[in-house]
Parts: sequence; C-alpha cells; structure tokens
Amino acid sequence: MPYIPLDDKLPGITGLLNYRLDSALPIRELTQILLRGESTLTEGERELIATVVSHGNECRFCTAAHTAAADAFLGETETSEKVKNDPDYAPVSVKMKFLLEIARKVQVNGKNVTSELVDLAKEAGATDREIHDTVLIAALFSLYNRYVDGLNSVTPSVESGFYDRLGGILKTSGYLPFENRYAALQAEPVAQ
Amino acid sequence: MPYIPLDDKLPGITGLLNYRLDSALPIRELTQILLRGESTLTEGERELIATVVSHGNECRFCTAAHTAAADAFLGETETSEKVKNDPDYAPVSVKMKFLLEIARKVQVNGKNVTSELVDLAKEAGATDREIHDTVLIAALFSLYNRYVDGLNSVTPSVESGFYDRLGGILKTSGYLPFENRYAALQAEPVAQ
Repeated sequence: MPYIPLDDKLPGITGLLNYRLDSALPIRELTQILLRGESTLTEGERELIATVVSHGNECRFCTAAHTAAADAFLGETETSEKVKNDPDYAPVSVKMKFLLEIARKVQVNGKNVTSELVDLAKEAGATDREIHDTVLIAALFSLYNRYVDGLNSVTPSVESGFYDRLGGILKTSGYLPFENRYAALQAEPVAQ
Repeated sequence: MPYIPLDDKLPGITGLLNYRLDSALPIRELTQILLRGESTLTEGERELIATVVSHGNECRFCTAAHTAAADAFLGETETSEKVKNDPDYAPVSVKMKFLLEIARKVQVNGKNVTSELVDLAKEAGATDREIHDTVLIAALFSLYNRYVDGLNSVTPSVESGFYDRLGGILKTSGYLPFENRYAALQAEPVAQ
C-alpha cells in the first residue's frame, strides 16, 4: 500500500509520475535523452545498466521493468539474467563488463568508482562520453529506485504480464509522455 | 583529477552540467521545480533535505554547496550544522525532524522508509505532497552525489570562498541556466 494516494491502476513508477506531472516531465526527458538519445551504446546496453543498478538496490519493480526492456531490445533473456546473477559469464563485450562494473560501484556510492576501474574500461575501448553516461544512468536509476520504494508503490507480480507490456512500450515508445501510455499499460496481459 | 576531461574552472557538479548540456537541462529543471517551485516547505527546509542526503553520502562538494544555500536562506549556520551532526537537537519543527529522517532513510535505500515513520510525519502535520517531495528530493540528491563523486569531479576547499559564492547564486538565481552563471562562480572569493 503506497504511503501517499496513487491511482491504483498505475503501479510502480507509473503512478508516481502521474501524481506530480510537473516534476515527472524532466525525469522522463532525462531518461529519454540518456537511454534513447544518440549514443555509441545500444539501447539494450543502456537498459542493462538500468537493470544492474535496480537489481543492486533490490528494487523489484524497476528490475523487472528494465529487464523486460533490455530483453525486448536484445531479443533474448540470457544476457539480462547473467548481468544480474552471474556477471563474469555474461555474454557482453569486455568494455560493457567494465561499464556495468562502474554502474554497480555507483549504485553503492560514487566514491567506490576507482581510477583503476575507469582505466580498465578505457583500455577496453570505452570513451569518455560512455563513462560519463554510464555514471549518470546509474545515478538516475539510484533516483528511480528510491522514488519507487521510498513511497512504497505497488509492485505487480511477474506472472501478471505487466512488465512484458511495459517493456514493449519502453522499446517502441520510449520514456516521454503520450496520450494513451497508461491505456496501453492497462491492456489485458500479453503473457500469463 | 576527474575521470573525464572537464573545464578545470568548473568544479563539482558545475563542470559536469557543462560537459553534457542536453542532459543537464532536465536535471536543472527538476531541481528548480522541487527546490524553488511552489511548496508548503520553505526553500531553506528543502535545502536542508539536500544537505542531509549529501552528508549521508559523504559527498563533500554537494554537502558544502547545499549547506551554504540552506544557510543563505535561513540567515544562520546552526540549523544546517545540527541537522547533519546532532539531528535530535536541530532547531527545526517536529514535522521537519520526521521529514529529514525520511530523507536519511531514502539516502540509504527507499525500502528503509517505514509506514510507522510516515505516520509519525503525518501526525506532526506533514501532507502527502510534502512526503512525496521529501522522498523525491532525497532521491534527486542520491543522483547528484553519485554523479559528482562517480566521475571524481574537483572539490574546492571550504576556505576558497567557492561555496559562499555558489550558495549565494543558488539563493538569488536558483538552478536554471543563465548566461553569466559560470562567470559569477569564478569571481574573486567573497569570503576567505
């Protein structure tokens, strides 16, 4: 039960972004820029950064949502599973392994990122901009995870099909508001 | 030494917000809405929330910057000092004591906020909107602290007068970009 009155048809972050639309807009815009804007990291790679940070914070809603989005972009579920639970064996590039490790450090505290780790990422081909964006995406999901859990918003079950619908919307339509966003979320479950 | 090339005249968050202007704008807008927009919490109270979260994350730059901003609004330095180091005896309302405690919980993890703590805040007069905003401000500074420290940006000394200038700018001009923002920061120290 959320700590403030939220629309009970809008679980997780969706009800919070609907509670205060003026603050929701820049949050949505920042997410769209970082996760869907021009980048040398793919959308799938950026969703994996969101996933490992949410997993580290044990935010069940955000982890399930961004796992679904990453899976939708990657076309498989093994990579998101491995980056969460068996990162040494995740089928990602060496560069992404180090960027995901930077994200995991940022999740705990920015100070935990070391110059040695940044050098390893750079030696594996990471650009300054990719390192910047990895840190800022990890910082942004540190915000989201706290917003979602700090107000005790509702977390649907994985079996409800909610995250498959949400992941599909995040892939096809991104993070900006649009008129039927919530109607699409509330459709009949696509997977049970 | 920052992990990516930043303007060496722009320490802390200022160089980062100048590094990528497109992502900086929604971060600035969100901060302006939450810390300077219409609210039943004063600007000083909202800067105290930013201060305790930054202090909890041991982000020296953000703690000094928002301490200076809070002090500028409150016209004294005792309150910001006490909310950081001796919160039980801080000269703030009972409502603010509970809101600051919610912010401290969010700083660690959103899940640490309990319904009992939220009830205490409500019994002391906190509205749903104040609870929402406290959690979101605490989540936003969880982003800022990680952005600043995760890229190892430069932290000026307190003796440099930098934070007095920055606190003054944050009080008089807020968080949105304006043409001479950086020139004002680089002025001669106003306090040594």
